[in-house]
Amino acid sequence: MNKLSNMQQILKQQQVDAALITDPHNVFYLTGFNSDPKERLLAVMVFAQAEPFLICPAMEAPDAKAAGWMGEIAGHADTQDAMEVLYRTAEKRNQPMQSIAIEKAHMTVDRYDAINRYFQSPEIHAIDDQLNAMRVVKDESELDILRHAAKLADYAIEVAAQKMNEGMTEIELMTEIELALKKRGITHMSFDTTVLTGPKAASPHGKTGERKITRGDLVLMDLGVIYEGYCSDITRTLAFGEPSEQAKEVYEIVRHAEQAALDAVSPGITAAELDGISRTVIEEAGYGEYFTHRLGHGLGISVHEFPSIHGGNNMPLQAGMVFTIEPGIYVPDQVGVRIEDDVVVTEDGYEVLTKYPKELTIITR
Amino acid sequence: MNKLSNMQQILKQQQVDAALITDPHNVFYLTGFNSDPKERLLAVMVFAQAEPFLICPAMEAPDAKAAGWMGEIAGHADTQDAMEVLYRTAEKRNQPMQSIAIEKAHMTVDRYDAINRYFQSPEIHAIDDQLNAMRVVKDESELDILRHAAKLADYAIEVAAQKMNEGMTEIELMTEIELALKKRGITHMSFDTTVLTGPKAASPHGKTGERKITRGDLVLMDLGVIYEGYCSDITRTLAFGEPSEQAKEVYEIVRHAEQAALDAVSPGITAAELDGISRTVIEEAGYGEYFTHRLGHGLGISVHEFPSIHGGNNMPLQAGMVFTIEPGIYVPDQVGVRIEDDVVVTEDGYEVLTKYPKELTIITR
Repeated sequence: MNKLSNMQQILKQQQVDAALITDPHNVFYLTGFNSDPKERLLAVMVFAQAEPFLICPAMEAPDAKAAGWMGEIAGHADTQDAMEVLYRTAEKRNQPMQSIAIEKAHMTVDRYDAINRYFQSPEIHAIDDQLNAMRVVKDESELDILRHAAKLADYAIEVAAQKMNEGMTEIELMTEIELALKKRGITHMSFDTTVLTGPKAASPHGKTGERKITRGDLVLMDLGVIYEGYCSDITRTLAFGEPSEQAKEVYEIVRHAEQAALDAVSPGITAAELDGISRTVIEEAGYGEYFTHRLGHGLGISVHEFPSIHGGNNMPLQAGMVFTIEPGIYVPDQVGVRIEDDVVVTEDGYEVLTKYPKELTIITR
Repeated sequence: MNKLSNMQQILKQQQVDAALITDPHNVFYLTGFNSDPKERLLAVMVFAQAEPFLICPAMEAPDAKAAGWMGEIAGHADTQDAMEVLYRTAEKRNQPMQSIAIEKAHMTVDRYDAINRYFQSPEIHAIDDQLNAMRVVKDESELDILRHAAKLADYAIEVAAQKMNEGMTEIELMTEIELALKKRGITHMSFDTTVLTGPKAASPHGKTGERKITRGDLVLMDLGVIYEGYCSDITRTLAFGEPSEQAKEVYEIVRHAEQAALDAVSPGITAAELDGISRTVIEEAGYGEYFTHRLGHGLGISVHEFPSIHGGNNMPLQAGMVFTIEPGIYVPDQVGVRIEDDVVVTEDGYEVLTKYPKELTIITR
């Protein structure tokens, strides 16, 4: 309920009467109830001066209670106008509702029209930035979950190292990884697991496919799990058999670029500075043109959230922020390497959540 | 391009200058380019009197071409305001843009605000219903894809029948099914595969978990694949070992209820009538209170689309419509059975796409 109190404080400060939160990730963040309602309405309505309520499909009400939601639940049936049920529930609180905050990047126009109709054209405020600012700093219980999610990502790479073999396709290796995770209770990955082998690893948009692992390949794996609603995200590039000299050289450059950025993480440094540190290592080694993406992205309930770690983001980092550091070098048709860790900013530096070793692993079997 | 011409006709008839389509499923339907851009802008803009264009992240432009899009592509970079790129591209066509149609159930408020800003507060029309009406009738090439998607769903049930065994958990059986499909090139299921065993099958919202298959169980499996962008959806309930007399009785009632609805499918009958036919069979057998959901849902690019087959939908069915028929009986803590097929309305009746047998399969091993 602490997060909801913070939300309420924000409304009071900004003199907004109420907020209607409909992004399922934000609803989960504020209420603990994690659900994807598809086209149906799921929302939490927070008031500056009254108790919040949750609105969800009636059949999901027991799940919301089981998830720990102690407040009022307004259930709606498919035969009802969910926005009308919302309005009736809000109305009973006898609160002013002249100004309502919404997530403009999530709310659809038809719901926006319905708000204007039922609440009689209130002042509409955007609450996106405030929610992003709340979510960007993780508390201890969130960090514990993220640590565990990262451990499972490490485990996935261990499984891959054990299972990969000559002639195995990328899809087969991906399947082995996901099978092992399912046996540990992971039902959803945070994004489609990527396995790219040999020259395919040099294509940042390559798709996991039917190419077979060949001796001498680098095997790039990018994956993550969803654990208790939070995401991990790891990339490791392993060698199957002895790699080329060029591959080894590129690998070491990426490893140094990644470590240099990690070592610089502490409160006060900006995202742009971090990006610059990794990029400089790669540029000075002569591969600057082949590092074609940002250094990293925030990580939490969403696999891509704030802060974005790129050259244009001059936001100073704060303790409790969690993000990826993932430099890469992609020389078309030749060699591709990326190394990615999940890292949290601590009071005096950083803690790396993903721990699979980064010295080049060469699989010889 | 036929579908785009139809869209253009609709704009002309309704005297709307242009439509901005942003739902990825509708973009795929109109352009053949299947992509999930997440928070980035992907859209096709269609004009009453000029050539359409596609706007997408610049790095995806080659994929759009590879998917067969022959028209203009406006690529946008992360450093640009995508809605401004959209406006500049539209502006070059020198077309009137006083009225613009959007998908109100998909477009977000921030994009809506940007349209009003760049296009100077045009008249906004909703185009959702027209797009749904276009998509609801499938053409021959769509039906061919749906037939193949259904075949893969049949195959999944065959695999399950071969693999299920005493002591295997629901998650293990689900994993075996998805592994077999991956080997046939299926990378995405149309929704989370459901395997529910014994009394769990009686909970319409039960989750695939750690329960082990026990002799005498009914095993309810609900799954589908995405094949070339189109979804299948099948449910079969198999018996592992000899089931109870009650289970056999319930199974036969559901089988008759399903067949009765199938046999009634032809152009002109309404969705509500179909729902009523199945429901009457179950009610007359004394289980009416245990059939707690609608009879079925439309199927295509989305796993739930129009038409919805429920008691309140008095729309007459037309040839080319594709939907599921899936009656079920769920007696809490005792027995749960659902049988689901994918069916297309033909000129003189129906064609069932899913073909796995519906006589009760009893696995004895």
